[in-house]
Amino acid sequence: MTAQQVEALFNPRAIALIGATEKSKWSSSTYLNLLTHGFTGPVHLVNPRGGVVHGQQAYAAIADLPDGVDLAFVMVPTDAVLDVLEKVADRGIGSAVVLTSGFGEVGPDGARLEAEVVALARRRGLMILGPNGNGFINAARRITPYGLAIPSPLLGGPVGVVLQSGALASAVLGFAQARNIGISLLVSMGNEAMMSMTDVMRYLIRDPDTLVITLFVESIRHPEEFLAAAREALLAGKPVVALKVGRSQKGETVAKAHTGSLVGDDRVVDAVFKQYGVIRVDCLEDLIMTAGLLAETGPLPGNRLGFVTPSGGACEIAADRAEDEGLEIPDFAPTTVERLRQVVPAFATVQNPLDVTGYILVNTGLLRDALTVVDDDPGVDVIVLATELPRDEPPDPALVLEMARGTAEAIRACRKPVVVMGNTLVDVTPFGRRVASEVGFPGVLGGIHHAMSALGRAVTWSAYARAAEEVVTPPPAVLPLEVEGGRGTWAEHEAAGFLAAHGVPVVPQELVTSPDEAVEVAARLGFPVVLKLAADVAHKSDIGGVRLGLATEDAVREAYAAVVAAGEGAGAMVQGATVQPMRESGVELLVGIVRDPVWGPVLAVGLGGVWVEVLRDTALRVLPVGRTEVLAALRELRGAQLFAGARGTEKVDLDAVADAIVAVADLAGRLGDRLESLEINPLLVRGSQVEALDALISWR
Amino acid sequence: MTAQQVEALFNPRAIALIGATEKSKWSSSTYLNLLTHGFTGPVHLVNPRGGVVHGQQAYAAIADLPDGVDLAFVMVPTDAVLDVLEKVADRGIGSAVVLTSGFGEVGPDGARLEAEVVALARRRGLMILGPNGNGFINAARRITPYGLAIPSPLLGGPVGVVLQSGALASAVLGFAQARNIGISLLVSMGNEAMMSMTDVMRYLIRDPDTLVITLFVESIRHPEEFLAAAREALLAGKPVVALKVGRSQKGETVAKAHTGSLVGDDRVVDAVFKQYGVIRVDCLEDLIMTAGLLAETGPLPGNRLGFVTPSGGACEIAADRAEDEGLEIPDFAPTTVERLRQVVPAFATVQNPLDVTGYILVNTGLLRDALTVVDDDPGVDVIVLATELPRDEPPDPALVLEMARGTAEAIRACRKPVVVMGNTLVDVTPFGRRVASEVGFPGVLGGIHHAMSALGRAVTWSAYARAAEEVVTPPPAVLPLEVEGGRGTWAEHEAAGFLAAHGVPVVPQELVTSPDEAVEVAARLGFPVVLKLAADVAHKSDIGGVRLGLATEDAVREAYAAVVAAGEGAGAMVQGATVQPMRESGVELLVGIVRDPVWGPVLAVGLGGVWVEVLRDTALRVLPVGRTEVLAALRELRGAQLFAGARGTEKVDLDAVADAIVAVADLAGRLGDRLESLEINPLLVRGSQVEALDALISWR
Repeated sequence: MTAQQVEALFNPRAIALIGATEKSKWSSSTYLNLLTHGFTGPVHLVNPRGGVVHGQQAYAAIADLPDGVDLAFVMVPTDAVLDVLEKVADRGIGSAVVLTSGFGEVGPDGARLEAEVVALARRRGLMILGPNGNGFINAARRITPYGLAIPSPLLGGPVGVVLQSGALASAVLGFAQARNIGISLLVSMGNEAMMSMTDVMRYLIRDPDTLVITLFVESIRHPEEFLAAAREALLAGKPVVALKVGRSQKGETVAKAHTGSLVGDDRVVDAVFKQYGVIRVDCLEDLIMTAGLLAETGPLPGNRLGFVTPSGGACEIAADRAEDEGLEIPDFAPTTVERLRQVVPAFATVQNPLDVTGYILVNTGLLRDALTVVDDDPGVDVIVLATELPRDEPPDPALVLEMARGTAEAIRACRKPVVVMGNTLVDVTPFGRRVASEVGFPGVLGGIHHAMSALGRAVTWSAYARAAEEVVTPPPAVLPLEVEGGRGTWAEHEAAGFLAAHGVPVVPQELVTSPDEAVEVAARLGFPVVLKLAADVAHKSDIGGVRLGLATEDAVREAYAAVVAAGEGAGAMVQGATVQPMRESGVELLVGIVRDPVWGPVLAVGLGGVWVEVLRDTALRVLPVGRTEVLAALRELRGAQLFAGARGTEKVDLDAVADAIVAVADLAGRLGDRLESLEINPLLVRGSQVEALDALISWR
Repeated sequence: MTAQQVEALFNPRAIALIGATEKSKWSSSTYLNLLTHGFTGPVHLVNPRGGVVHGQQAYAAIADLPDGVDLAFVMVPTDAVLDVLEKVADRGIGSAVVLTSGFGEVGPDGARLEAEVVALARRRGLMILGPNGNGFINAARRITPYGLAIPSPLLGGPVGVVLQSGALASAVLGFAQARNIGISLLVSMGNEAMMSMTDVMRYLIRDPDTLVITLFVESIRHPEEFLAAAREALLAGKPVVALKVGRSQKGETVAKAHTGSLVGDDRVVDAVFKQYGVIRVDCLEDLIMTAGLLAETGPLPGNRLGFVTPSGGACEIAADRAEDEGLEIPDFAPTTVERLRQVVPAFATVQNPLDVTGYILVNTGLLRDALTVVDDDPGVDVIVLATELPRDEPPDPALVLEMARGTAEAIRACRKPVVVMGNTLVDVTPFGRRVASEVGFPGVLGGIHHAMSALGRAVTWSAYARAAEEVVTPPPAVLPLEVEGGRGTWAEHEAAGFLAAHGVPVVPQELVTSPDEAVEVAARLGFPVVLKLAADVAHKSDIGGVRLGLATEDAVREAYAAVVAAGEGAGAMVQGATVQPMRESGVELLVGIVRDPVWGPVLAVGLGGVWVEVLRDTALRVLPVGRTEVLAALRELRGAQLFAGARGTEKVDLDAVADAIVAVADLAGRLGDRLESLEINPLLVRGSQVEALDALISWR
């Protein structure tokens, strides 16, 4: 599938509605959409009975269509789709939207039919969007072959929207309009039989009308393509904002039922998005508002806000929410405070957030003056202004327009980005839109709550995008590693030897097969030692297969006999025992590689003990992963403060820890698909001494 | 201050605007509000110059006002307020709203003036709202002496609103209107010099027009009154929903600056709200929507949702959000599944959440039929329907009205509560309001995200309200306890003896003052023992003042000498040492009583070790606290799963733990203000054996 074909599908010059009929609401809506939202090309109708449909003469056969049609919008019954597409291809039409449902989404029979559709399309060089999708809205070019009603006015703008849900498209359209945020292209993906979400992402990355890409995701069908597209978007400076559902168990079940595809572990999705700079949001409101904000401001220089508002209550809500979102509202510089005292009324408190008070009703220059001063504060990256567009048209709109114009001018006069937010999430009304357009008012984020979410995410993305080159540059190709005997699960000493041989620091240990040998090795390694059963048993300590702190030869002898007996008692295949020096306690980490059904090998790091067992406090990253990301993963652990050295433990050398973990991740990368899982538990850290004390490797 | 006086202030029959002038926007707005929102009584104006103001003849003096005025709305300059209020009282007017600012909020001088205002009011029997507040909107009775513009239409309804922020009142009004949620009374509190938030809460509890009370809170000035009002509201079945700002450090600073009063520890506020059934929300949107929901449905029977929608994407968002909010979307009963199969199209997946698909456009009875079936499911407590009111008026509204009427009838036909939510938070437009009113459509929660927040909180509140009698009945009066020598900080053995004497289980321990005595006590208590320095030292173990596992007489002798020497070396006042039996390890809890500057004594419980030290995982309750709440506090700990018995530890007998904690809380209650703090760390639990191993008591 070529980029040209995707481009062609979204930019047809003439469209034929196949299966056009008065009886279908989809047919009526699509026809009306094309008529009322500015499509300038011809719209042809095909109905087997011919006659007049939607007040226009219909063709009885696809073959009768005039030249120049380059998109067929197919709404015929399921069993007619194959035949129709064949005829579409015969007529030389290169693209089709298939709205008809009854394919992959209904079960195996439908999936077979869908496969036939794809085969036909491939054979005939046809590009298909759908089936089971509502089409698309190319608002930038006013091309709207879309099966549900589009509310007027259709606002063109910088936000691209890709949806794996047909019905939500209307909700997104309506919400974007209510926020006065324009869209470039909206696509309802349907079953993605041929054109996939990532194809559309790539189109939007190239599309000059699109500044931000938003996704509603049920299931990522092509993980590698997705990562490539995400990387491309980040390097192009186009933020990708995604609402990925299926976070909950129930949500996952539902998403699976809808898409028939695997959803994978949601925590891995989180990790992937973080690693590739995809902004994840929880709700449709944040999806659109975060996109609208980034489209307007572009990357933001930092997280330090200068907050200006005429409402005390807004200040406090903003301060609370800022902290939630990792945003700072720093104290103003002394000169700023001094200058602000000249500006605000005597009874106002000069601080950041700044409540300029209700005296803006008396002194209309107050807000402008305050903005000017805050713009000069060296500790402020972004100015936030809490204000609203007017809602209802007053009898004399001139006054309202004049005030809005003054505010808009004051905002434009600032050198720093100014983000405007209303107190609550209410629509930008038609009058508000008119005012905004007449005076050049910037976009207003709806409500402090969502605005702070959007701002927090925009700031995080901006910092990530600045480091994009470093972070998302594909790592050098790895040299695959062949492993002899890579089958089943490797007992500890095998795994340990293998890891040590490939650059992972492992505590010295030797396999012994007799009490005498155990004593000899213990003497060489130095007392006290640890002795562990070497056998195919997962939790050795549970059956008495681990003995710690053996300080004498006798103790080693006794322990050898005991662990071997324990292994045999449990019916295990006993190979002997391993001897390793006993280490003092330190910070215990868990480092693992697991396979996610969607994303493949995933690195998991965590702190041992309750942190992993009770709190499930692990940080994940998909492979390949670099040093920066490993450090970020360690720092995002809830127990990360333990690294600073708590009572009685030494400060952890994170660089040394990262080296060990990168070695594990690199090794896993070289092993590729042959590795099922790898677990080091614990990786013991004392200062800059890092050692794997126990390891387990399973092969596929 | 009597309830009658509060009642009189909010229900005046005639109002005088004192300081009415064309030059003031507050004056114009107030006058216009009274004129346009249905106030039927006379509105008089007073201006020292007389003449025509706002097109009406003004009185030059308050003394000239006609009889029957029962509210003065005061907008005069700050320094004229005292004189004006004196004259208001002279004229026999019983209530005043003081809009004027420049009082407590500006500093000590203002505070003095404010105190004079209160003294005057008390002396003259005047009831005052404010100063520095915008007045109130009694929407139920159409009485609107309010200083900022009120958007039309002013929707009367069941939600009472009390705000400690003047400027946010407009935001709340606008948002409620956009959600088509009516208010009963909205009050902008100002400085609460006389009438306080709790006075208004009590009025709203009695007010038959109010079903739910909402609060925007910067600072709770009268904690005891607040608790009493919250209890009263819960027993009356009126939910209190509160947005309390100052959660963050910055937010707290700002709130302090605005109100001049203490904010207290926000985690204690959380605990108080939980204990007294006050629903805490994070944003204005949730404040109003949660109130609107509860006003419409009343208490909800349970947390099991039957979710019905025509949009697949909505299902998944809803499933994810439901889990966030502690709501269940259980599988449907087999008969429900069978019956739904007859109702929905063949290609639809029958599950909960139920996507009835876009075929509602074809089969208009589909939604109704699905609702009927789900209504019969025995596992569903609440039906959720995702649908929207129409936004724009179509050329022929009859069809839209007919569809809405059908849906409204289907909802009314359900026996279970039906909660309606739109996909995104967009306004109920004027046309939507008209449709809702014409067909009797229920309230539509704005957007799945906020709707699920509101629903989760409503369900939690409902469960709490059902148990209200048990939970909030005031405990029997406590018998105060006098303590001899209650000064400074008590060394461990003193604290332990005191706790043991008052019903708290404490490990046996005795104070010894010589090595011989130590050995004698150790023999009596049984070896091994623990020996601790008895001295005024906080962290004994840090200076070597604690010795564990002493198994022999010699060890005890040696330890005695060592800890005493350590104490003397640290320059402490050494009393000797305490001897206690050494206990096996178990689950370690921390139980403390601390004083909050606002709420007084607070019980804190937590798990020892990293749980408290790193994760700050404690649960708080203000005193008095009963057994049910103590158990709830234990269960809300993040580490609560450790109580079930992890590897190697016994299952914790929570009842036994609760008994010990209740004994501590009761004792603290009896000690009242004399107690500064009390800490038991650890309270050791092995199964049903519960013992304090170490305790510290500080007196005020």
